[in-house]
Parts: sequence; structure tokens; C-alpha cells
Amino acid sequence: MKKIEHIGIAVKDIEASNQLFKVLFDKAHYKIEDVESEGVKTSFFKCGPNKIELLQATNADSPIAKFIDKKGEGIHHIAFAVEDIEKEIERLEEEGFKMIHKVPKKGADNKLIAFLHPKSTNGVLIELCQDISD
Amino acid sequence: MKKIEHIGIAVKDIEASNQLFKVLFDKAHYKIEDVESEGVKTSFFKCGPNKIELLQATNADSPIAKFIDKKGEGIHHIAFAVEDIEKEIERLEEEGFKMIHKVPKKGADNKLIAFLHPKSTNGVLIELCQDISD
Repeated sequence: MKKIEHIGIAVKDIEASNQLFKVLFDKAHYKIEDVESEGVKTSFFKCGPNKIELLQATNADSPIAKFIDKKGEGIHHIAFAVEDIEKEIERLEEEGFKMIHKVPKKGADNKLIAFLHPKSTNGVLIELCQDISD
Repeated sequence: MKKIEHIGIAVKDIEASNQLFKVLFDKAHYKIEDVESEGVKTSFFKCGPNKIELLQATNADSPIAKFIDKKGEGIHHIAFAVEDIEKEIERLEEEGFKMIHKVPKKGADNKLIAFLHPKSTNGVLIELCQDISD
């Protein structure tokens, strides 16, 4: 794992949170993106080599809607940049980690992504991601 | 804010979690440190320009013990590296953010630290930190 690619934060109102994080970082978001397959609207902020991804649910079945119902707004996941996502999935499965996605899928921000199950990672929802252009 | 300095993860058993994250990162922790003032035992892993800090409570009054009682193991806070922590605290207070620490204090890993109140940051516990050697 090369670095923390981004931290995903579940929010109820992405417009209000964009304003809040703009003031916090003293810099506006650089991108908004809808990920229909996940039922989320996202917004990205740069912070040096890392990013913050705000996530708002666009329907009640979205994982973000369920997360907020259960835990409230807050940190949802950590994404680590990897060189070769398929190799990393294979390594982690051999080591006994449980993958939510055994095959990488297309995520936001031009990435191939795969999530690990938080039951095997101390309650932390971890995403692996690889730039599609890599 | 220059980058994500580290992500703090609340764990029940730091020895077991050190093993888990060692396998996850394919690399052992580089440091363990007790922070008596916070009632925590910490362990640090490097991940490129970023770090992961595991936190285990050393007494029942520790903020980490209370966090785990309420929410279970998982991501506890995000720490951002800043150039000048006093100037950043002043800026954030002027912008209306609520600081838990208005004056920086000594934290783990040779840092001056200050936390923002999560009520003013979308439920996210945010730490500012500056290298003491900066």
C-alpha cells in the first residue's frame, strides 16, 4: 500500500459540508461526481498527497444512508492506493482477510476499487484503489 | 493543512491489532509509545507519506475506552499536519470552529497537537499536529 489515497466521510447534506470543509481546508472541492451504482453523490478535496471524499446518499438503500442511520455522520472508510489491485486482493485473501469485492469494480475519481470486510480489519472499512490510468 | 499526518484507530487489544495491521501493510509497526496523559498505548505504522496510529485504552476513563464502549473498534480520528498550529487554531476559531484544545499540547510521536470538536466538523474528530522539531 503506497499511501492513504483518501478518507471517505458520510454526510447528510453535501452542499453544507462542502462549505464547511472549504473553510476547514481554506480551499474548495475540486470535483463532484455521482456514483449511481453506489447511490452516492461525492465531492473531493485535495490535502497534499491525500484527498477527502464527502459522500451523501442519493437513495435510502445506499450504504451511506444505512451508515448514517446506524452511526450518524462521520468517517466512513479509509482508501489505500495500491500498485496492482488484483495482486493485492489475492495476497490479502491468502492472508485470511475477507474481501467484499473479490473482483475490482469501477469507483469514483477514475479508480478501480475493492473493499475489505470490516469484520476482518478491526471494524475499519478499508478500500483498495488503483488509478485506472496506472 | 499539508497532508493527512495519520489516522487514529481505536482497538481493544493492541498486540493482536499489531499483528493484523502488520499483515495488512506487509510491514511491522515502527514505534510503540504510551501517552499517560491520554490513558492510551499507541503503535505506529508508516504508509508512504502517511501513518496509521493504533490506540488502546490503558484505563477505563481513557477517551479510547469511552469511544469503544459507544461505537466499537474503528476509526477514531483524522490528524492533519499543519505548518503553524497556533496560527491554524486562531484561523479556525475565527471561522467558527470549536476547538477542544485552544492551546496546543504535547501528543504522541513528538508532535504538538490540538483537537477540534466533532460537533463543528460533521461528526469527524479532527486533530491538528505540528512536528515539535519544525
